[in-house]
Amino acid sequence: MTRRGEFGVIDELFAPLARGNPAGLALTDDAALLDVVPGHEIVATTDALVEGVHFHADDAPDLIGRKLLRVSLSDLAAMGAEPYVYLLTLAVPPGCGDAWLERFTGGLAQDQREFDIHLAGGDTVSTEGTLVLSLTAFGIVPSGQALRRSAATEGEDLWTSGTIGDSALALEAMHAGFEAAEVAFLRDRYLLPRPRIALGTALRGVASACIDVSDGLVADLGHVCRSSGIGGEVWTASIPLSRPARAVLGADTELIRTVLGGGDDYELLFCAPPERREDIETLAQGCGVAVTRIGRMHDGDGVVVLDAKGAEISLTFHGYAHF
Amino acid sequence: MTRRGEFGVIDELFAPLARGNPAGLALTDDAALLDVVPGHEIVATTDALVEGVHFHADDAPDLIGRKLLRVSLSDLAAMGAEPYVYLLTLAVPPGCGDAWLERFTGGLAQDQREFDIHLAGGDTVSTEGTLVLSLTAFGIVPSGQALRRSAATEGEDLWTSGTIGDSALALEAMHAGFEAAEVAFLRDRYLLPRPRIALGTALRGVASACIDVSDGLVADLGHVCRSSGIGGEVWTASIPLSRPARAVLGADTELIRTVLGGGDDYELLFCAPPERREDIETLAQGCGVAVTRIGRMHDGDGVVVLDAKGAEISLTFHGYAHF
Repeated sequence: MTRRGEFGVIDELFAPLARGNPAGLALTDDAALLDVVPGHEIVATTDALVEGVHFHADDAPDLIGRKLLRVSLSDLAAMGAEPYVYLLTLAVPPGCGDAWLERFTGGLAQDQREFDIHLAGGDTVSTEGTLVLSLTAFGIVPSGQALRRSAATEGEDLWTSGTIGDSALALEAMHAGFEAAEVAFLRDRYLLPRPRIALGTALRGVASACIDVSDGLVADLGHVCRSSGIGGEVWTASIPLSRPARAVLGADTELIRTVLGGGDDYELLFCAPPERREDIETLAQGCGVAVTRIGRMHDGDGVVVLDAKGAEISLTFHGYAHF
Repeated sequence: MTRRGEFGVIDELFAPLARGNPAGLALTDDAALLDVVPGHEIVATTDALVEGVHFHADDAPDLIGRKLLRVSLSDLAAMGAEPYVYLLTLAVPPGCGDAWLERFTGGLAQDQREFDIHLAGGDTVSTEGTLVLSLTAFGIVPSGQALRRSAATEGEDLWTSGTIGDSALALEAMHAGFEAAEVAFLRDRYLLPRPRIALGTALRGVASACIDVSDGLVADLGHVCRSSGIGGEVWTASIPLSRPARAVLGADTELIRTVLGGGDDYELLFCAPPERREDIETLAQGCGVAVTRIGRMHDGDGVVVLDAKGAEISLTFHGYAHF
């Protein structure tokens, strides 16, 4: 329980997060007012994190806040949108008091500065159950220029940003007793996604389809294939891996399945015509993000995964499903 | 657990709710795209309902869905906005299966038709804890015309729509063994709020400040006073009561405190200059909603409650606080 009371929590912890953008009306009203520059659209995305499912009760509260915000920012990046404001809903159990909320909002404040986004409203309620956090983030995109899952076409390249598999391999690395530095690197990739905002906006008008890798590389490519009505092919030998991920993989080649299916990468997976390869390399360099061609889109449907010799790898998972 | 799986639930239960508005991109993308007519703003509001706090596990799932949607619609009404689309987040415990989700989405479908609003996105996650629902609703309002809490001025009338206290008295009526019909009326008022959308939009340019009564009449008037920097006065003898509420009150005059502090009324509480009285009566009639003058705004700060003889009633509550 908190000594501040509900309205004290709003005034002292949340209202400062709403300063800097008029949309939140200083949290004094029933709702936020989103004012759109003519010729632009608002992108809205919502995500929930649940204690015991997405994080542990004793995880650092500031990191929980930052991951919550960053998961939604990654969705905005995948649509090519620039961050604008967000709404926050907390279902708070009795064990979450002032100290927890202070650290949680401290984490949000830190990432608000990094990603130029502000709180604009929300709802805080009590629960006798577990802590549930949900966040709705808003981004701005020029009208008609949002990146969509459904616009991939046959013959296009398949690209990914950054490295794939780090989050999924973090757990393996811990169990297998890898070096502390490697485990820490992988665990950090899991705890603190890097939303590729700059890359997402730079890809407007260049990439056809785009998605962020949250369910897993193959599952998310499957979403693109299904939405676009075509098939996709992934070359495992081309998938970019971090040095710690390669170290973990070296011990067990079967772990490539973990890389393909793991999820929580929050990298951008996108399609573009072959003639844009040079443009893409250049714009990615400008964003300070590595990009790698890892496959291509073809006629047909579904996802095919090929190993270094061109043999198909059969997969039995379909990304993380919540039911 | 559900036999459909997460993506099946989206395709079969949620996607049909997104038909009829392009903003949801048929739920195939990472986010919704909100396209705004030039000269308009988007109002965004978010609310959470938690099992065991806001509803019981064995409440009818369709009514839970409808209340969830209506609570947010009431916020839109208080801002003078017309419903547009909404995002939905569910943290679903193992006990909530297909049958529950079917009835829940059935309730949403029913109210989507009544209030002309469509699903545009969301997130469904599993939890080992209790069911937590959160909803972000979007409304449209002509730029600069949103009703705000902060615009009340000294000398204005204080009005409410409908009747006050029904929800709070439902529990009293059940315990005190009142007639089934009266209990049913009051309980229905609690379970199924009537968002005053038509009245809210009609009040644009007429009312100064507006809020919906969710925390309780006195607490919500307190929010208006604080935001507007003035004081407010409520006449208990003028507060509109339903016939069942009067029957319950008749047995115990102390229960007027329950009416003043109870909350969950979802009526509009608004301020307007005395010269607009006739306009307000006329426009409310056009909306088929009763409106009643129940006080006035004055110099100073805070809320004063006066009984039929003009004596001040002292109150020790401050609305429902969640911590």
